[in-house]
Amino acid sequence: MTDVTVSLGANKYGKAENRLVKITRDTDRHEIEDLNITSQLRGAALVSSYLEGDNSLVVATDTQKNTVYAFAREHGVGSPESFLLKLGAHFVDAFEWIDGGLWQAEQFAWERILVDGDEHDHAFVRKGQATRLATVQKINGTTHVTAGLKDLTVLKSTGSEFHGFPRDKYTTLVETTDRILATSVTARWRYTPEAVEAEPDYNALYEGISAALVSTFATVHSLALQQSLWQMGKAAIEQFPEIAEVRFAMPNKHHFLVDLSPFELDNPGEVFFAADRPYGLIEGTVIRDGVAPAPEAWTDTPSFI
Amino acid sequence: MTDVTVSLGANKYGKAENRLVKITRDTDRHEIEDLNITSQLRGAALVSSYLEGDNSLVVATDTQKNTVYAFAREHGVGSPESFLLKLGAHFVDAFEWIDGGLWQAEQFAWERILVDGDEHDHAFVRKGQATRLATVQKINGTTHVTAGLKDLTVLKSTGSEFHGFPRDKYTTLVETTDRILATSVTARWRYTPEAVEAEPDYNALYEGISAALVSTFATVHSLALQQSLWQMGKAAIEQFPEIAEVRFAMPNKHHFLVDLSPFELDNPGEVFFAADRPYGLIEGTVIRDGVAPAPEAWTDTPSFI
Amino acid sequence: MTDVTVSLGANKYGKAENRLVKITRDTDRHEIEDLNITSQLRGAALVSSYLEGDNSLVVATDTQKNTVYAFAREHGVGSPESFLLKLGAHFVDAFEWIDGGLWQAEQFAWERILVDGDEHDHAFVRKGQATRLATVQKINGTTHVTAGLKDLTVLKSTGSEFHGFPRDKYTTLVETTDRILATSVTARWRYTPEAVEAEPDYNALYEGISAALVSTFATVHSLALQQSLWQMGKAAIEQFPEIAEVRFAMPNKHHFLVDLSPFELDNPGEVFFAADRPYGLIEGTVIRDGVAPAPEAWTDTPSFI
Amino acid sequence: MTDVTVSLGANKYGKAENRLVKITRDTDRHEIEDLNITSQLRGAALVSSYLEGDNSLVVATDTQKNTVYAFAREHGVGSPESFLLKLGAHFVDAFEWIDGGLWQAEQFAWERILVDGDEHDHAFVRKGQATRLATVQKINGTTHVTAGLKDLTVLKSTGSEFHGFPRDKYTTLVETTDRILATSVTARWRYTPEAVEAEPDYNALYEGISAALVSTFATVHSLALQQSLWQMGKAAIEQFPEIAEVRFAMPNKHHFLVDLSPFELDNPGEVFFAADRPYGLIEGTVIRDGVAPAPEAWTDTPSFI
Repeated sequence: MTDVTVSLGANKYGKAENRLVKITRDTDRHEIEDLNITSQLRGAALVSSYLEGDNSLVVATDTQKNTVYAFAREHGVGSPESFLLKLGAHFVDAFEWIDGGLWQAEQFAWERILVDGDEHDHAFVRKGQATRLATVQKINGTTHVTAGLKDLTVLKSTGSEFHGFPRDKYTTLVETTDRILATSVTARWRYTPEAVEAEPDYNALYEGISAALVSTFATVHSLALQQSLWQMGKAAIEQFPEIAEVRFAMPNKHHFLVDLSPFELDNPGEVFFAADRPYGLIEGTVIRDGVAPAPEAWTDTPSFI
Repeated sequence: MTDVTVSLGANKYGKAENRLVKITRDTDRHEIEDLNITSQLRGAALVSSYLEGDNSLVVATDTQKNTVYAFAREHGVGSPESFLLKLGAHFVDAFEWIDGGLWQAEQFAWERILVDGDEHDHAFVRKGQATRLATVQKINGTTHVTAGLKDLTVLKSTGSEFHGFPRDKYTTLVETTDRILATSVTARWRYTPEAVEAEPDYNALYEGISAALVSTFATVHSLALQQSLWQMGKAAIEQFPEIAEVRFAMPNKHHFLVDLSPFELDNPGEVFFAADRPYGLIEGTVIRDGVAPAPEAWTDTPSFI
Repeated sequence: MTDVTVSLGANKYGKAENRLVKITRDTDRHEIEDLNITSQLRGAALVSSYLEGDNSLVVATDTQKNTVYAFAREHGVGSPESFLLKLGAHFVDAFEWIDGGLWQAEQFAWERILVDGDEHDHAFVRKGQATRLATVQKINGTTHVTAGLKDLTVLKSTGSEFHGFPRDKYTTLVETTDRILATSVTARWRYTPEAVEAEPDYNALYEGISAALVSTFATVHSLALQQSLWQMGKAAIEQFPEIAEVRFAMPNKHHFLVDLSPFELDNPGEVFFAADRPYGLIEGTVIRDGVAPAPEAWTDTPSFI
Repeated sequence: MTDVTVSLGANKYGKAENRLVKITRDTDRHEIEDLNITSQLRGAALVSSYLEGDNSLVVATDTQKNTVYAFAREHGVGSPESFLLKLGAHFVDAFEWIDGGLWQAEQFAWERILVDGDEHDHAFVRKGQATRLATVQKINGTTHVTAGLKDLTVLKSTGSEFHGFPRDKYTTLVETTDRILATSVTARWRYTPEAVEAEPDYNALYEGISAALVSTFATVHSLALQQSLWQMGKAAIEQFPEIAEVRFAMPNKHHFLVDLSPFELDNPGEVFFAADRPYGLIEGTVIRDGVAPAPEAWTDTPSFI
């Protein structure tokens, strides 16, 4: 045991899940931005905090939190991507030994409450449909921007088949030409360096890409959830030149047709049991041909999910 | 210890959280109903299952589950209230020793996916905003119907004050004439016996009552969350003669104005920290004057929540 | 609509889920108490806060929070029951218009970390097994104390049968003389007024009663989960004269024997699928004969759960 | 848009969260193994399922589930690592086009219920402390085994300092020489190829490594959570030659000393508010010097968490 030596590998540290609500109230018609922001820093010199508990270079996680709130006042939010870009630039610029980091945001959508059919100026109801995701990665001198969504639950009550799969001694699944297809989409797309350079309207991109994903899910006649995933990514890339690649994690949320024959009832695709676990889990990446790969963009982000 | 005797008090048993998805597909334009149903039975004679493990009168919880799915095929759903009424009537009618029970439903809303602006016939996205609640209580020969919603998160960015409260040695809270007011509404209302008798359109009632609650939250200039609660219940009862009473549990989801003065920044109601715990918790019941009280209607339901 | 009038019914308000960690460090061997405390007040005069937003009698929920933390320093915790009793007495005594309330606690158990077999003085690991519950109810001039536990997951791999139940057209369940019986126990017991008067060692009672419940679950040969529930409550009441009654909510966490016959394998009670939903839900109350009933003790607490 | 082409990148698919409970009952003293198993497959030829919905090579996720349960009967479990190794070998051997995959397990610990001080033969209570993790990765012809734990919550009530950090205009944190240090440890360690080759006692390794991590947390006088992390990984590697590297994600679960001075009370490290969000998040990898790096071992596993 005496001659065993160890080294510090990949690491980062920061403040996670800073819940920020920003109200813009320069007119009577307020705007709300509701985010959950995580800031983490990297730097080769930070090894001393691990090895010796030397904090002389450790920008406190509390300081990172304060910076989030102060920046919301100083610069506004605008979009999660642009806000994270400002945060990331600040930490790398302000502290010479910080050479990178990962900044992540979740954003929750709100809509105005309707009163007698009119949108209220300062009363909102949380939309509840999907959570928007954004990340800024600064690594080896390069800045990457990814965006996405999670918990977007969609379902087709027909237009989905599954058959033709191989059968071995453990196979009991019956083939079907009509099933419910339901999933809770997690998608993360990387913006091209050119797109980032151009400072695009990230909010408009998010709305457009989300709509492309959902409408493609609806229109694809699906022979496998894999195929739906592929077509969704393909559609997004074809419609939005800003996207370099899209990663998906899509659970197959099983809806089992209930066998009602013991009760002398048929069940022509009408009554289903929605199961919790286990579930299928289909993951895949769709990549625009010709773009430079950037595996580092995804460092320390969940592989698919 | 030898002369201690015990008796069985309140009890019920059944199958909880039967996840039912019902597709109506008699035309190409499908409909989806998505519910989580709990069925529980009561009966004086059931004491023998507790005392002796005698199951001769125990309608198996598995049978209750099967009945839920079979009834969805035989009778459709229509509304959670009407579905639970059919279930409850069945169990009490089919088994003479079952003299009551509690049937509860959660319903999850879906909306059609838009493809090029048009609603798709059989592709849906889960709405995600609030969960609809319904219960049917059969007890002492009477049937009660309550309905409600939970997890409806609403926020006002102004139009909320809190001051004038008493101060003791443990009071440090600063008075305010402008704060964020945010809550996640749980509301449960009881329909009058006359309303139940008339077999109303429970879906239309739910939509109307929900809208009344939300729009009242928006329009009340609030001096206390208690006042908002009261006005919401009052508005619902005034607008809907079918309602006998409304119970509310409304957490005060604190949004703390961040002190940015250490950074030489003001913060005129713009940047907030949304806290998780602790939270205020305001509960209250608003009752229509003149209706007969029916405390039994709420037996074994959560007090407020 | 103009002549509709409404009144305020049952209500209470306060601060929920105050997370309190109390370290006792008067010697090098520290002690830790970890609680989640909810304080809510009632008072007839509080109606004005609902009807008019008049806060002149509203002891701020923030003040209630402060009092929790200050009392932890002034009086220590000792047991959740005794701490809640002090809190409740304070609010009713300090504010003449507060005539009651409900104080609830969850407590999380920790154990000392072992270093080379010895218990460490100030390093702890969270036990993770069951959450202790306590409530103090002050209502109509009387004080009630209940205690309990939740999320105590127990399982018997044999010694459980289920048969002899009635069969109707919706019954498909097969009878069994050997199944897994698993549940997550929620139990709440009420202490007699005499026990409360005697200021018992609530911590010792909790340990003893918990052990009685669990060991009875183990030793009862179960013909129905109802029977296990009954025997558990009976054992607790027989062994502890301090208990007036016990309420249980016990889900039947189904473990389905997997049909391995398609793979030419038998399955003699060895391989199970642990299902999430639906689940059986068995609830019941066991009452000591001869004690005065006290339904008010349970006001605004969850019916069973 | 017409000339945009896309390709399929990284992908895998399978059945997630198969809940398996295995009872060993060859004597009256039963044993229980409780797992949550995810199986996912990879293969270059599977691209056709994405591009064309051609399922001829898609080993159904249902088949993967069946195989999990059948293997539990045919081979037993033994340890999650050895069970996943058998599963992984099967899929790669049985289907020539499957060239890799990821198999993951969570395992939940149970202990025997004590009855009058004696361990019961077939009644168990879930331990609730930490979840054991295991993964088998088959990629590019190599098999990697990692193990770990999550949700192990530990706390030191003293012996933790934090000071000497840099201060900028956003820094307000006060330095401290005595604070509570609490974290919920997620640790994942990779076994060396030599260790895997030797078919070690994975259960004994898990117990030993877990104990080393926890006791090191206890004994390190901490100047930073980073330092505790480092020492924990170092101790594990020094004591267990089977470990090549350890990855940690350790939230700093803040316990804020409550300011009781407004109530004329001191607070010498006794009364704390346990906060939920935000929290510090410290991540790091400790690597044995001299072992061959194996970044592919971690493919598609959460980066740290």
